[in-house]
Amino acid sequence: MPLQKGPRIREIHITPIAIVDPPLLNAAGLHAPYALRTILEIVTDDNISGISEIPGTTEIDAALEASKELLIGMDVFQLNAIQRKLEQKFGVDQSSDRGEAPWDQRKLVHIFSAVEVACLDIMGKVMGKPIVDILGGKLRERVPFSAYLFYKYEGAGGEYGFNTNPNATGWDAARQLAALNPGEIVAQAKAMCAEFGFQSIKLKGGVFEPRQEVDALFALREAFGNAIPLRYDPNALWKVETAIQYGKEMEPILEYFEDPVRGQANMALVRKALATPLATNMCTTSFEEIPNSIAIGAEDIILSDHHFWGGLKSSMTLAGICKTFSRGLSMHSNSHLGISLAAMVHLGAAIPEVPYALDTHYPWQSDEIIVGGRMKFEEGAVMVPTEPGLGVELDRVALEKLHQNYLNCGLTKRNDEIEMQKVQPGWKFQALRW
Amino acid sequence: MPLQKGPRIREIHITPIAIVDPPLLNAAGLHAPYALRTILEIVTDDNISGISEIPGTTEIDAALEASKELLIGMDVFQLNAIQRKLEQKFGVDQSSDRGEAPWDQRKLVHIFSAVEVACLDIMGKVMGKPIVDILGGKLRERVPFSAYLFYKYEGAGGEYGFNTNPNATGWDAARQLAALNPGEIVAQAKAMCAEFGFQSIKLKGGVFEPRQEVDALFALREAFGNAIPLRYDPNALWKVETAIQYGKEMEPILEYFEDPVRGQANMALVRKALATPLATNMCTTSFEEIPNSIAIGAEDIILSDHHFWGGLKSSMTLAGICKTFSRGLSMHSNSHLGISLAAMVHLGAAIPEVPYALDTHYPWQSDEIIVGGRMKFEEGAVMVPTEPGLGVELDRVALEKLHQNYLNCGLTKRNDEIEMQKVQPGWKFQALRW
Repeated sequence: MPLQKGPRIREIHITPIAIVDPPLLNAAGLHAPYALRTILEIVTDDNISGISEIPGTTEIDAALEASKELLIGMDVFQLNAIQRKLEQKFGVDQSSDRGEAPWDQRKLVHIFSAVEVACLDIMGKVMGKPIVDILGGKLRERVPFSAYLFYKYEGAGGEYGFNTNPNATGWDAARQLAALNPGEIVAQAKAMCAEFGFQSIKLKGGVFEPRQEVDALFALREAFGNAIPLRYDPNALWKVETAIQYGKEMEPILEYFEDPVRGQANMALVRKALATPLATNMCTTSFEEIPNSIAIGAEDIILSDHHFWGGLKSSMTLAGICKTFSRGLSMHSNSHLGISLAAMVHLGAAIPEVPYALDTHYPWQSDEIIVGGRMKFEEGAVMVPTEPGLGVELDRVALEKLHQNYLNCGLTKRNDEIEMQKVQPGWKFQALRW
Repeated sequence: MPLQKGPRIREIHITPIAIVDPPLLNAAGLHAPYALRTILEIVTDDNISGISEIPGTTEIDAALEASKELLIGMDVFQLNAIQRKLEQKFGVDQSSDRGEAPWDQRKLVHIFSAVEVACLDIMGKVMGKPIVDILGGKLRERVPFSAYLFYKYEGAGGEYGFNTNPNATGWDAARQLAALNPGEIVAQAKAMCAEFGFQSIKLKGGVFEPRQEVDALFALREAFGNAIPLRYDPNALWKVETAIQYGKEMEPILEYFEDPVRGQANMALVRKALATPLATNMCTTSFEEIPNSIAIGAEDIILSDHHFWGGLKSSMTLAGICKTFSRGLSMHSNSHLGISLAAMVHLGAAIPEVPYALDTHYPWQSDEIIVGGRMKFEEGAVMVPTEPGLGVELDRVALEKLHQNYLNCGLTKRNDEIEMQKVQPGWKFQALRW
């Protein structure tokens, strides 16, 4: 084939959406009735469309808007040059920008991730190849995910808020139930695993005092037996002594212990004391933080997330670093739809090993914006899309509906503290709690 | 574009060649009159041809031959799966396989590099894009190289052996001259820089006792002034005390000091004692060796080489590791032709930074096997090829001629000790010499 110029970026469409999210509890408070995502669509001069999905805030949307003038006219294949342009505009993220919340608030990595995935989608379509082939090709046909359990209030989220939709059945009904004690967590796990077939379980903690949460993990072990690996994530709220005390108790039952404490130095102390591997999505969240993580031995497993590590190709580099330094690799998630899930699956299929099933909030969502509706799980795994690019297409009717949700709901950024205060007046996030 | 299957590998052609090489001296002895390379050509089921070039030995050629049955029928885009198949056949290289010589003797990384570059050449042709675009796109139009000075005996190499070709002019004539003392090294540098426009200079040492080689570096500084950075590589023959003593003396004039001593532990000792950055192509030569290099602070700069680091995509991962751990990145070379040079240039254009001009033996070669003949240097740099794939095509007449050279010369692997013994009977390689 002769040399192909471009394709070049002609249009960039930024659409904030709000997706129904149930009242999930976490260290930062409570999920709002809607989670915000931003859908990016890039259209080339030859009318090829590429899409991506990132966590949305008005600030991120504004930064994407401000990036348009830099990006219009650029060749989608020039990802290195695009990254450099965005670095020059926004500055390389400092790790301190990440914030204390369980989700990452850095700007450049978000924006570049959005642009990169949409460009890769276009590149795949131009080449007639799925994105996984741009990452070196798939090493597995199915990518395994883990059940992601949450403490929650009763309620469906969205317009139902804390109410339940009486017409729901199956997992849709189970998803509405409260889970505020070990028995309800076990019931949630059983319903989720029955629906999706997950082969491993993660409990998002940092909600109740440690004794109750640890009891829930033992109840899960009791209910599921040894064949189902368990992970637990108190979102860095614990003191070092607390983490070591309960960590020792959980050594026989945990596959890994995620962010029990805040900061690499504290993680290193806990890691020295425990046989259980430590994982992180809060203490080592950027390439800049890796050298110290390695130097002091802060963690065993890094949770990648292409939205926060600067895209899929950077996540492949992270995988190479983890392999080189004998660190495990897994994947973090926020509330998301099928575009993010498809990107996660392409990445999960290309990384050298998937020793740990990946995280996903997908079971908690009911909305979708891809043609054909919700993606399917079989035995807890998702088949790698085989169509060119991401392998999923934007459902424009759904996009419009979810954008209307965004306009109607009035949310502009995630703030779980404010949502929690609506239920427990005066509730305050505490970075160190137990 | 609809989903494209393949293209699949239909034929693999392995052609050992011998290229004229002058009598260059180094730590391991003397270059033979011919250097061996192996040219790999992969042809797909739809008749697209991809090529690559690696250091050749009968052992590597046999391993490539034995890989054919694994590779025939595979999709060239499935590089991860191809790598896994070759790993399963040959085992992951152990760093100890590298050997003590200045060149790397590991099998898997060689073979996968050959296959990967040929596949990338095909992928680029299928996509209508240069290989640099598969690596994320170019960050510079020209990739800078360094003058690579060698001590040498008089002679042109090849059929001339230690004789000179009386018809040669310009650099072709200068290349034949002996360089056995500081004055002759300066003359070589002047002739090479005049021809290629290099903006930095490296002296390959480990040939004479340190005093003489260090004097040559001071003579170069005297002749070229401070504007031309100098590097020096005694190929790990020195004792730690020697490296510190002469290293201190050279601190004012060296840009970096490459492999003064053998082994990471010794490098770390020298690095602590000197202000000059230490570079390596002998002490840290694989991903497996990186963790200890970082842990003990063995080096400041890693010399990549896609032939030895498992291809271009792995070299991008290495670049990511170097960036993450604040290590510099440069590039190593052996005697090579334009196919390797083109691959080096694509890589050099995609890596985030090129703080150090790359090594190349190319000025020492006179043969070529690419259509259009020898690649051009301007001000010491090579323009990034813009045609699809590598951007260079095999000259089949030249290939046949160089293959005949191979058959005629009788060499089967590089052995600089035997060549040296032809000049200095009884000469023995010593891993620790001064």
